[in-house]
Parts: sequence; C-alpha cells; structure tokens
Amino acid sequence: MSKEITARSQDYAQWYNDLILKGGLADYSAVRGCMVIKPYGFALWENMRDVLDRMFKETGHQNAYFPLFIPKSFLSREADHVEGFAKECAVVTHYRLKNDPGGGGVIVDPEAKLDEELIVRPTSETIIWNTYKDWIQSYRDLPLLVNQWANVVRWEMRTRLFLRTAEFLWQEGHTAHATAEEAVAETKQMLDVYADFVENYMAVPVIKGVKSPSERFAGAVDTYCIEALMQDGKALQAGTSHFLGQNFAKAFDVKFSNKENKLDYVWATSWGVSTRLVGALVMAHSDDEGLILPPKIAPIQVVFVPIYKGDDQKAAIDDKVHEIMAELKKAGIRVKYDDGDNARPGWKFAEYELKGVPLRVAIGARDIQNNVAEVARRDTRSKESLPLDNLAGQLVELLDNIQQSMFNKAKVFRDEHITKADTFEEFEKLLEEKTGFVSAHWDGTTETEEKIKELTKATIRCIPLNNPQEEGKCILTGKPSKERVLFAKAY
Amino acid sequence: MSKEITARSQDYAQWYNDLILKGGLADYSAVRGCMVIKPYGFALWENMRDVLDRMFKETGHQNAYFPLFIPKSFLSREADHVEGFAKECAVVTHYRLKNDPGGGGVIVDPEAKLDEELIVRPTSETIIWNTYKDWIQSYRDLPLLVNQWANVVRWEMRTRLFLRTAEFLWQEGHTAHATAEEAVAETKQMLDVYADFVENYMAVPVIKGVKSPSERFAGAVDTYCIEALMQDGKALQAGTSHFLGQNFAKAFDVKFSNKENKLDYVWATSWGVSTRLVGALVMAHSDDEGLILPPKIAPIQVVFVPIYKGDDQKAAIDDKVHEIMAELKKAGIRVKYDDGDNARPGWKFAEYELKGVPLRVAIGARDIQNNVAEVARRDTRSKESLPLDNLAGQLVELLDNIQQSMFNKAKVFRDEHITKADTFEEFEKLLEEKTGFVSAHWDGTTETEEKIKELTKATIRCIPLNNPQEEGKCILTGKPSKERVLFAKAY
Repeated sequence: MSKEITARSQDYAQWYNDLILKGGLADYSAVRGCMVIKPYGFALWENMRDVLDRMFKETGHQNAYFPLFIPKSFLSREADHVEGFAKECAVVTHYRLKNDPGGGGVIVDPEAKLDEELIVRPTSETIIWNTYKDWIQSYRDLPLLVNQWANVVRWEMRTRLFLRTAEFLWQEGHTAHATAEEAVAETKQMLDVYADFVENYMAVPVIKGVKSPSERFAGAVDTYCIEALMQDGKALQAGTSHFLGQNFAKAFDVKFSNKENKLDYVWATSWGVSTRLVGALVMAHSDDEGLILPPKIAPIQVVFVPIYKGDDQKAAIDDKVHEIMAELKKAGIRVKYDDGDNARPGWKFAEYELKGVPLRVAIGARDIQNNVAEVARRDTRSKESLPLDNLAGQLVELLDNIQQSMFNKAKVFRDEHITKADTFEEFEKLLEEKTGFVSAHWDGTTETEEKIKELTKATIRCIPLNNPQEEGKCILTGKPSKERVLFAKAY
Repeated sequence: MSKEITARSQDYAQWYNDLILKGGLADYSAVRGCMVIKPYGFALWENMRDVLDRMFKETGHQNAYFPLFIPKSFLSREADHVEGFAKECAVVTHYRLKNDPGGGGVIVDPEAKLDEELIVRPTSETIIWNTYKDWIQSYRDLPLLVNQWANVVRWEMRTRLFLRTAEFLWQEGHTAHATAEEAVAETKQMLDVYADFVENYMAVPVIKGVKSPSERFAGAVDTYCIEALMQDGKALQAGTSHFLGQNFAKAFDVKFSNKENKLDYVWATSWGVSTRLVGALVMAHSDDEGLILPPKIAPIQVVFVPIYKGDDQKAAIDDKVHEIMAELKKAGIRVKYDDGDNARPGWKFAEYELKGVPLRVAIGARDIQNNVAEVARRDTRSKESLPLDNLAGQLVELLDNIQQSMFNKAKVFRDEHITKADTFEEFEKLLEEKTGFVSAHWDGTTETEEKIKELTKATIRCIPLNNPQEEGKCILTGKPSKERVLFAKAY
C-alpha cells in the first residue's frame, strides 16, 4: 500500500498528518499556514455545520454576514481586544497592483495606498458591534440573536492542518441583551449546545468549565469552554462561549432605552467553534489504519463493495445492493456503491478503512446464494456475516450502536485520564506518566498559573462548572484554595 | 409610515436602495464598498444557495475550500487573467500590528512585512489550478468536479448594495477534464443549471448566450452567460460559465497522462453566481410598496396576522392558526405567526408588504365564526376571502400560482423589451425610448463594439445560443454580418 500511515506509538504528530493528508481531508497550500480543505474533508465539515446551524436556529438565532475587513482603528477601541489580536493580523494596505516598469510581472501600486489600513477579521466583535449601534435603540430591539459562518485569519507562526491554521472557517455568534442575567444565560445555553453537538454527534466527551483570567477571550468578562481529550493525553479546547459584559457596547457606544425609558449599555455574548473540530474528531477516535468517523457526521455511512467475476455475477449483486441502498436512502442514510473496476476489493477495503467509513458491506456471488453479506465495522474492525433479509434495518441499528460505542470508548479513556494531584511532585509525575487532565488546587493567581506552565507546559484548561468546593492548598505555592481546577498540556 | 419607499418613476436607484435598506436585506458598513447582509437578506441568500448547492451535487460536483489569499506572483501566470484583475485587488502586505510609540493606538509593524504580498482572492482559478497540479496525474483523476462557496474581493470604485460590492459572496465551480468537448459540455451544462435556477426559482426569465471577446472572463476561451432584464429596461448579467481551454493548465503546468499514456494539458471550466442575484431578484419583481419575493425562495412564504380584541378572541384564533400552520409546515412551507401585540394589524400588513412575503392571511374573531380568512397576495395586491376548510391546501396552490404568475409577468415584460434595429438611428431611438434589449447586426470587431458603447452606453450583452443566422449589415459600420446580437445598457 502506498498510503501507509505512521503508527501513533511511533510518531503521533506524523500519524495525525498522515490521516489528514492521506485520508483526503485536507492538503497544504502554496500560502503559508493556509490549507486546502479537500472534498471529503469539506463534506465532513458540511455535515457538522448543518447540524450546528439547525441547533442555532432552533435556539432562535438567525444568520447574517458582516465584512471581511475591519478598519484598523476599530480594533483599538477595546483595550484587551487589541492586545489579544494585534500581533497576528493580516493587514491590507493597498487596493491595486500595476505592471512592474522593470518588467517583473506585477507590483503593488504605491499610489493605491489605503487611507486607513484594513485588518482581515480575526474575529468580528468590533465590526459587528459598530453595526449593532445602528440596529439597537430600544429594549424592543433585544435580544438580538445573530450568527455568522465565515472565514477568519490569525497569523499564527506555527500551524497544523485543521488544529491551527492562518485562515480557518468557523461560526461566530454575536448576541445583544437587555440584562446581564439574560446574556449569561445565553452564554451558558450556547455552551450546552456545543457540548451536545460534540458529545452526541462527534462522539467526543467534553468537560464544561470556565477559563481562568489569563486564558479568557480578549475582551470578555468570562469565557466558558468545553475541553476534550485526545488519544495522546493532550487536551483540546473544542468550543468557547463568552460573556462580554458591556465591554463592546461601551467601546462602540451601543445604548438602548429600557422599559423605564432609561438609557443603558447593551450586554453581549459571543461564541464560536471552527474547523479545528475536524482535528479534534480525527485525534479522538482514529487508529493506525486510518480515520474512524462517527456515523452521524460521516460523509459516507455505509459503503458497498461487490465481489464478482463476470457481468452475470455483477448484475445479480447490483440488483441486491440497489435494493438495500434504496431502503437505506429512504431512512436518510448516506451510502455509496463502489463498483468501479479500476481497483481490487482488497484495495477498496483499505481505502474505506483509511477514510473511516463506519460500515463496509461486501457482497459476493455466493453471498447472494446464501442470502448473506459480510458487514465490517470500522470502529472495532470486526466482521460478521448478516442475513440479507432486512439488512438495511440491521445496518441502521449498527450505525446507532457504533455512534454510542465510539462515545463510550472515548469517555472511558477520558475518565481514566482525569487524576488528582495534591503535591507538585505528584502533579509533574502524572503529567508525564499518565498524561490527561490533572485535577489540582491552585491559589487563583495568574503568576502561579504562569509559573506552572513554565515548569510543566501544562495550563489550566478550565474550572469545571458545578465544581465541588473543597479546602486545599495550591500545589505550587501552598496557599489556601477552595476548589480544584483542571490542568493539562493542550493543543 | 416611517418606512416610505421612493417611487420607481421618481428615482429608480433610490427606490432600489430603499427596498434593500428598509426591507431589511442589507446595510451599509464602515468599510468602503462592503455591505452587511442582514438576517432577512441572508435567509433569502441561504435559500438560493441551498437550491443551487443541491443542483451542483445532483450534477456530480463536490464542495471544497481553498485559501482566501493568493500569492501575488500566481496572478501573473496567466497574462489575460492578471490584466483583468490586478487593478482591483486588495493586497495584504503585513501580518502584524504594534502599539504606536507615539501613543496613537496601533500601527502596522514595519518589521512584519511579507516576503511576497498576498492578494485577497478576486476569483480562485490561480490558487486552485496550482493545487490541481498535485491532484491530477492521470485520466483516472478526471473529471474533477469541484465547487467552492466563498467570499471574494474586487476593489470596485463605484459600488451598489448587492449589485456591485467590494466583497461579495459567491460560488465558483472549477472543473478539470480530459478533453475539450467534455469541458465545453460542462460549461454549457452549468449555464443550463443557472438558467433553470434563475427562471424556476427566482422567477426571472433569462437569455442564454455567449459573450463577445471584449466581455469575456479574463483568461477564458469562451464565456457563456445568462442575461436578465430589470424593470428600468437595463440588462443584468445573472451568471457566467467559462470554457477556459488549457490556459490555466498551461499557466500552472497541469498535465495528465491519457489512456494512450501520452501527456496532455488538462481542459478547464469555471462558473459562478453571486449575491448579485439578490439585487437582480429585487429589481425584477418589486413595486413601490416594497419587495415581491418568489415563493420558492422567500424566507417567509405565508404570514398569519390575528385581528382580535381580548384574550378569548385571541385564543380561538391561535388554535385555528396553529392548526393551519402545522399542516403547512408538514407540506414544507415556511410560515410565521405574527401575534405580537406591539404593533397594529395595519402596521404589520405594511411591514410584510415591504418585506415581500408572498401570502398574508388575516384572521379575525368574526372570520372564525364565518369559517373564512382574508388572504392577500403580495404580487397582485389582491385580497380574497377563503374558506377555512382546507385553507392550507389552498395556500399551497396559491403559492404555486404566484410563482408561475411572477415568472409570466416578468417574461411578458422582457419579451416586450426585445426589439430589432436595422439602422443606428433606430438603435439609438430604441435604447432611449423603449429600453431593454435591442437586437442588431454588428460587424464582429471590438472597435465597433467600443464605439457603440461610447456613443450609446449600450454593450453587447450576448450572442444568443442557437442564434438564427441571417445576412445583414452592421448598424454602425455597414459591414456585412451573419447574425444579430443583443445590445443593452446594463448593470
């Protein structure tokens, strides 16, 4: 096989890249840090996007679209925000090229310099709140529940396919409310939507929590997050939901008259998930043979491969497969019949294993006679011979089973990798040997957090929601602490 | 009413802007030439996008995503292409801001200059064909049928909401083929898809044709187009499909080995429609009271407005409306019940007229007793009292009727505005008095085309497909001509 995958045990990072590249999800591009999302990868993202979009609409949100460009001065309006994003902004300075008088193709036309430089949006709070100023006058205009699907650019120095790219696709919700309570409730609701999606569609268990101040979104009062665990024991932030207080309303002077006819600043939230989730999905489930995709979002849920000699045998198999596929399609299942004659069945088997198709059904001429088919599960790599009678029904059940089983497996792994440390020595040892989340006391200061990061590379992933309160001592400083927080090395 | 619309007869351009802004489709933004697509406008675009996306997938295309940025040097690889786009490119030159040492917020960090400037994509042929080089080796990799939904930027000097904006949303198909015949067939197929969509969903009749050389896409061998007519008698190009020959394959050295194992350059097509279609939709159908949206893509197809005094009356109306709405939803109809008590029925009526909702159903307490409802059609502004029995079924039929009737009305208007001119005097007169398309003989030269444009502002919109051949003389030069072409003033 030319498409050999590096083993996880050998080189985890290379294993990941092999899966992304050879599994047909994405490709490097000619532009530094930007990737090409290939058709198979994009179909996966589309399935994810469509589920999320439905969830957003069911919770009352509408989509809109705001400009790609942000005037440079907008970024400065909110002090923390500019601090957080200025260092990684792509900047548009000119609006025209012209022929190089020296004959070297085209050059930037120095006469076409913009009066004010434009930033390619790294996130859209500023341009959106500048617009909300015109949309919000009264409490009757609230809540304003808007989402945007868009590309954003953050000029990251070290990039990795899907996990960290200069340009990525995401959705960003931006809502406006009359009260702090309502905005906080929205922030938490969207965190729940994300957790629901990641757990029940991506089959990846998450921990919901709040970020420590140093890990907060630039401009937020509170950042809520969901944290997932990858197979190498590193954590990955899978989604964030921010309570922005009145920070952006103040920065862009967005006031509303409340029911008592008094003017007040509007309360805000923002929340987002991105194509990074594809990376999380790959790292959470796949194995050394290739991708393992959860049925609910897999581009192909069941693939049929015929095994035959000659046209007569094939015709009989075709009939049967088309019959079963029709039933599956009726049940809303995404199916493919790979009856191309340019590859042998064994090659096809390997290809669909690599691509993570949840179920593979092989049907030969003798199978038709025996009224059976060979059904292979991608997640467990187990095969069984199933009767052709009501095969569609059995496959639908198996898909449900795989979805649940993938979540359970990931949850067992995750739960095994949450451990407690009460001393710094224990903490370091757990991070090294056991990996995963380490639950430990912390004195609540940014200094200590940074020191721990420096010493161990672990960061506070979150302070879990509904965290049990318990007296303890900070693992580093010994100062008193009221609760444990979750540390981990992270993507 | 605060939302008064300028009459078409008074100021057509202002009428259009009023509809877009007051109808809630879009808003100006703080960034020159860029617009904000508001939720109602975006819902309309989503409906259009979803239909097109389904059509693309049904014809075998897959979606993918390529980088927003294009290295400047890529643009120069195809001579016509750079000539066509260099003058309207947003250029990224830096990747970081820093604090202004002078204290004036942030400035562009001069040390963060890119080695090669990046162009914000005006269209993606170059970055995509640079990628296809890695994807295509053999005839087995062909055809490659890819589409991308994306934002693109063309730094237009004069912009108009939806019709011409610096940033716009679109789809761009980019396909690769083993033979010229196959690529030409693809080009024409996608033109047919566009025509099908614009006629049968947007209810706007179009003329299919080929562009004259001077109106060709930069880098194309042939540009096919669909041309629509607006109510002011101006034409609007609603979609284009390009046969690119081997131009981009040569520019990016994309060769494949054919069945005879010989290397040859790949044949290409590209095709696109954009948010400009929203502008076409508005201009083709709307009236002085507001938008008129075709049912098939209207965000709300039927709106219910209760007319009542007191809770008892309202409860009875609620029950009935919910019952009818449930039936409509089952039939896939997008409905809204506006029972808010913050506005009078008359205000709501005007609002939904402005927003172009195809059907409005008003139900009062007495209507319930009489077992009727008042149904108002937006397109004809006619009202009728319909029995509540099987009202849902009647409404579904009415929606079909409106869709067809809107197309018919637009087609009658369009057909009345295609006239023939045999002399230049006639030509000028028709353009002035009758407006619309003028069918006339042309000597086939770019010089004549330009001269005619200079004299009359009319351009050749297209040479219609299956154009009858007829001997004639060019209206300007009197030189012999074999066929008439369609001229018009255009958006």
